[in-house]
Amino acid sequence: MNAQEYSRPVDLKNIQITDTFWKNEMELVRTNVIPYQWDTLNDRVEGAAPSYCMRNFKIAGKMMAEKKVKGASYEEPQYTFRGFEALPEDPDNLEDKFYGFVFQDSDFAKWIEAVGYSLTQHPDAELEKIADEAIDIVCAAQHENGYLDTYYIINGMDKIFTNLRDHHELYCFGHLAEGAIAYYEATGKDKLLKAVERYAMFIDSYFGSKPGKCKGYPGHEIAEMALFRLYEATGNDIYLKLGEFFIDERGKRPYYWDNEHAPIGKKEDLRYHYHQAHVPVREQDEAVGHAVRAVYLYSGMADMARIKKDEALYRACEKLWDSITKEKMYITGGIGGTHIGEAFSYPYDLPNDTAYAETCASIGLVFFARRMLEIRPNSKYADVMELALHNGILSGMALDGKSFFYVNPLQVVPESCKKDERKFHVKPVRQKWFGCACCPPNLARLISSIGSYAFTEKKDTLFVHLYMGANVKMDVNGKEVNVVLDSQFPWNGKVSAKIKAEEALEMTIAFRIPGWCKKFSAPSIEGKKTSMKDGYLYVRGIFRPEEEIALNFPMEIRVMAANGRVREDAGKVALMRGPVVYCMEEADNGKNLQDFYLEAEKGFLQCKSKEFGNEVIVIEGRAKKKKYNEADTELYHEYKTPQFEKCKVKFIPYYTWANRGEGEMQVFVPVDVRG
Amino acid sequence: MNAQEYSRPVDLKNIQITDTFWKNEMELVRTNVIPYQWDTLNDRVEGAAPSYCMRNFKIAGKMMAEKKVKGASYEEPQYTFRGFEALPEDPDNLEDKFYGFVFQDSDFAKWIEAVGYSLTQHPDAELEKIADEAIDIVCAAQHENGYLDTYYIINGMDKIFTNLRDHHELYCFGHLAEGAIAYYEATGKDKLLKAVERYAMFIDSYFGSKPGKCKGYPGHEIAEMALFRLYEATGNDIYLKLGEFFIDERGKRPYYWDNEHAPIGKKEDLRYHYHQAHVPVREQDEAVGHAVRAVYLYSGMADMARIKKDEALYRACEKLWDSITKEKMYITGGIGGTHIGEAFSYPYDLPNDTAYAETCASIGLVFFARRMLEIRPNSKYADVMELALHNGILSGMALDGKSFFYVNPLQVVPESCKKDERKFHVKPVRQKWFGCACCPPNLARLISSIGSYAFTEKKDTLFVHLYMGANVKMDVNGKEVNVVLDSQFPWNGKVSAKIKAEEALEMTIAFRIPGWCKKFSAPSIEGKKTSMKDGYLYVRGIFRPEEEIALNFPMEIRVMAANGRVREDAGKVALMRGPVVYCMEEADNGKNLQDFYLEAEKGFLQCKSKEFGNEVIVIEGRAKKKKYNEADTELYHEYKTPQFEKCKVKFIPYYTWANRGEGEMQVFVPVDVRG
Repeated sequence: MNAQEYSRPVDLKNIQITDTFWKNEMELVRTNVIPYQWDTLNDRVEGAAPSYCMRNFKIAGKMMAEKKVKGASYEEPQYTFRGFEALPEDPDNLEDKFYGFVFQDSDFAKWIEAVGYSLTQHPDAELEKIADEAIDIVCAAQHENGYLDTYYIINGMDKIFTNLRDHHELYCFGHLAEGAIAYYEATGKDKLLKAVERYAMFIDSYFGSKPGKCKGYPGHEIAEMALFRLYEATGNDIYLKLGEFFIDERGKRPYYWDNEHAPIGKKEDLRYHYHQAHVPVREQDEAVGHAVRAVYLYSGMADMARIKKDEALYRACEKLWDSITKEKMYITGGIGGTHIGEAFSYPYDLPNDTAYAETCASIGLVFFARRMLEIRPNSKYADVMELALHNGILSGMALDGKSFFYVNPLQVVPESCKKDERKFHVKPVRQKWFGCACCPPNLARLISSIGSYAFTEKKDTLFVHLYMGANVKMDVNGKEVNVVLDSQFPWNGKVSAKIKAEEALEMTIAFRIPGWCKKFSAPSIEGKKTSMKDGYLYVRGIFRPEEEIALNFPMEIRVMAANGRVREDAGKVALMRGPVVYCMEEADNGKNLQDFYLEAEKGFLQCKSKEFGNEVIVIEGRAKKKKYNEADTELYHEYKTPQFEKCKVKFIPYYTWANRGEGEMQVFVPVDVRG
Repeated sequence: MNAQEYSRPVDLKNIQITDTFWKNEMELVRTNVIPYQWDTLNDRVEGAAPSYCMRNFKIAGKMMAEKKVKGASYEEPQYTFRGFEALPEDPDNLEDKFYGFVFQDSDFAKWIEAVGYSLTQHPDAELEKIADEAIDIVCAAQHENGYLDTYYIINGMDKIFTNLRDHHELYCFGHLAEGAIAYYEATGKDKLLKAVERYAMFIDSYFGSKPGKCKGYPGHEIAEMALFRLYEATGNDIYLKLGEFFIDERGKRPYYWDNEHAPIGKKEDLRYHYHQAHVPVREQDEAVGHAVRAVYLYSGMADMARIKKDEALYRACEKLWDSITKEKMYITGGIGGTHIGEAFSYPYDLPNDTAYAETCASIGLVFFARRMLEIRPNSKYADVMELALHNGILSGMALDGKSFFYVNPLQVVPESCKKDERKFHVKPVRQKWFGCACCPPNLARLISSIGSYAFTEKKDTLFVHLYMGANVKMDVNGKEVNVVLDSQFPWNGKVSAKIKAEEALEMTIAFRIPGWCKKFSAPSIEGKKTSMKDGYLYVRGIFRPEEEIALNFPMEIRVMAANGRVREDAGKVALMRGPVVYCMEEADNGKNLQDFYLEAEKGFLQCKSKEFGNEVIVIEGRAKKKKYNEADTELYHEYKTPQFEKCKVKFIPYYTWANRGEGEMQVFVPVDVRG
């Protein structure tokens, strides 16, 4: 491993986010999401279904304590299948059993990961104490052989790893590893990390290419990228090899899962598409199946391609990247066109109203993008990262941080969400929490670590992928330098980077030139060598202390159209400004949004608005709205040249939608088509 | 019962269809569908899944013969649940068990009904012999107590009528009764009718309002209308009362089915909506649930309203009629907006591409319409009947009578039907037959009896609801009169009615004035009293032998728009001419039909075409088609004023679609919207 060959994320402890926009989101996570999440883990939220997460750890811990006392006389429970979600028969009188989803352990893992990141930005002794105690509980549940998944510890260890396809053990491991590393890196405390390493060693003893070892791999990916991260955090290449094994084994024939489960006939192939296990990963060239699983796998593949300098794997990653971003991504950075399997649909099938576009899937896309950036800085990755972050991801959380979307549609008619079973997955207002609570904690861990997506470093070069106010500390040839970034993104394109150092030093700052910016200017770059490569402006030279580089990326309102193959968007346009996608809401424009025809060529007004708390920019455009004859109640009638009334239409940032109650919303708006 | 109070269908034996258009369809049914159906009933169609229908009757017959021989020593089988569709473990080595769907007996019933109707139009000794032999087999299966459903006779009589909600016994009874009556009325042979009457008496002994009797009712309606028909065919009012009981009991609280099945929680109500059993029928004012079941129920309700002069029930029928035709019907006469439950969606939710619009549901709508016409002749009913027949029903059968649609979408992109699970119910080409074979036999029985939908009579009045060439024999005050109707519908609006009688006589002919006709003319009505009422032109007077009345309903091409609340059709139009709805197909217009914008105001050309066998009228219009820059491969790009190329577009009758291979199709076409 040579840190100098590839750019790597700047250590979060070396970044302080000062940005108005992102700091606000991080504070929502710190003050709302993380405490709320802790309460749910402990079944203390009134009205919410219990998670049973910490309870399961405590019960497993009690059993393990008993095992230690009894030794050989301890009787392991015999495995009983308790369902994908095990609910108690009598919720008021719980037995010492496992309750909740088979992957419920991961609730803790995601929480401790977010806590770790948050502590780097906002030290909090009280929170750290709570976390330490929680870690004690979790570590006490670990089996003496290193195994650490309460579903099987409580239900019967005799069946561990026998349902890899559906039972999420390796998924829970992956999350736990990510959480342990984050907490260790933030606090230096390694208790959980050590437990995870023991668990990883146990997994390694079970799986692998050597004869007699299990040839299985995760049904829900994440262990792969977690193992690579564990390798890079510890230097132990056992984890690297185990991650490689999982990546390489995937999709080989005969299918490993055919041993676990009776083959399910003709649809077998389709089923394995769902898990991205239909062919070996290097042969995959279309993003298919469950969207979250897919991008988690691709993230692991990108890690491995970087670490192993595996060009074939990198090429597969590139193909999959293109498949997503050129054929299967919403304009919001949402992915997953169909709720059936929470999955990618076929190319260009991007329905607005039945979209899945799960918050977690866009988060996974950001993971994938950052890893591709590490290998080869190219603005195409960072552009998508920025797009997903400001739209399909932030839309997942209410402006007060208290409610969440799992699904992020591009068009909503509340009536249809309630009355049309095909749209039951689409909610017109955010929900407090979910039984299957993946999106809120995933948002928490991403937002808390936003700095590691914004900035990577390689030797004496700082890459600025995302613009946000931050102090970034680097070591440039043994000298400490602080780069103070200032930005008013996403509302204003002016950015600057000021050098804080003891003395002048030579370094490079590589600024991404956003794809949405037609013409940028660099009002103050003096005496530096500049060059453009793959969408980055490399500024190299000797920087004086306090020297400031300023750039300007003018943000214009852009009227966007989808590729003609996206049938759902034929004759429609969407508005963007900088990285922000806009939408129309009923609250501003009334009902029947389908009747507005945007006069896209008549120009737009933009103005600042405080109606969503922090200042945002809203857009006003002109449209004509179809007029109805009130007497015209026939279901079908003879067409008459429609009458229109001129009107103004208001667009708000997509991520702010559904914060003013329930109503219609649309991103793509019909446009007048006469040529 | 007073036949003179309401108009009643003219006896099929008194009608000879001579019409070019309909005779062709009837011949397809006679020469293709009926023989094919007989082969499927007997599992003789290679490549098709066996029906097991006649086989089940034979096995039941064998058991009943044994029972007769053994008497009291015969051991009835103990009931075993065999699944909703029971398939043999080894198809090459069948046991004497019931196979197929629980409702498989109805395959025979629908066949014998179509055979009966067909024999009235085309006597066929060979077919009659086959039918008689089949009836012998079916009657031999009847239990000595009168019960006649092979699923339970073979599987165990101890559980009859214990799963009314799902097990279709009363549905099979209803079809069997309809078949028996049709065959009796056509041939005078009453063997099957007598068997059905015995079965009806057995059902009457089991169900009813008296204490101790079962208070259940059919899960899939049809027994109601069958019982009313049985009453009118035989005069036995036990059948009338039983039908009334089923109608009146439906939807009462507590729900009868809650005794059969564990209540299924919150969704209970929704579940009973599916069966139209959520509230008593007189309180129902919105068409909900499984569309076929719904219109079968409403047909029975209309029968009862007429027979019992039940105004409250008639009003409920009117409300349900309005609910369907004003809020929930496709322009093709298709009903059922969602495939989830093959059901009505909420008002104005009429998606084109995911439509269900089952052929059988439109057929049921025709049943309902004819029954409403019997009560009060009003062209609104006949207009819908005509619409459904020429579009959403005929589209169900290929032009060669050899393949069928279950689902009749208004927009198809073949790729999406194959790759998008949400559209798996939509087929881009017709299928040979279906395991659940309801639509082809339903088409057969409707088309074979088309005359009874076209003509009803009341005292000395003949109602002409549908225009078609036919000889209709009536008794007018004891004198026989033949009304010879001539028509070139649906392509030309000229029609005539010529009187053939021994001498002049006074009578009325009531002609429906089609809703689509803006201005009709009556070039030859001399010396008659004419009056308009509810869309019918009543022509009364003394008719001389050979006197001819001619009417003309000019057929113009009409550009139709949907109500503004139908979001799916916003900014789109559809073409109609007379009762025929048109569509665009890929075969004529190339791919990407969404890119055409119809210049609706530039007029249309119509011309005769023989490309679909018999002559039809096709339409040519002008459109502009969006031009793409081939280099423009970005998924999203900045909108530019689109470039268009002028082109011609061709429209073909909707019912002829998908007869030239697989391709895109659309009924609603985007139209230029600038006001």
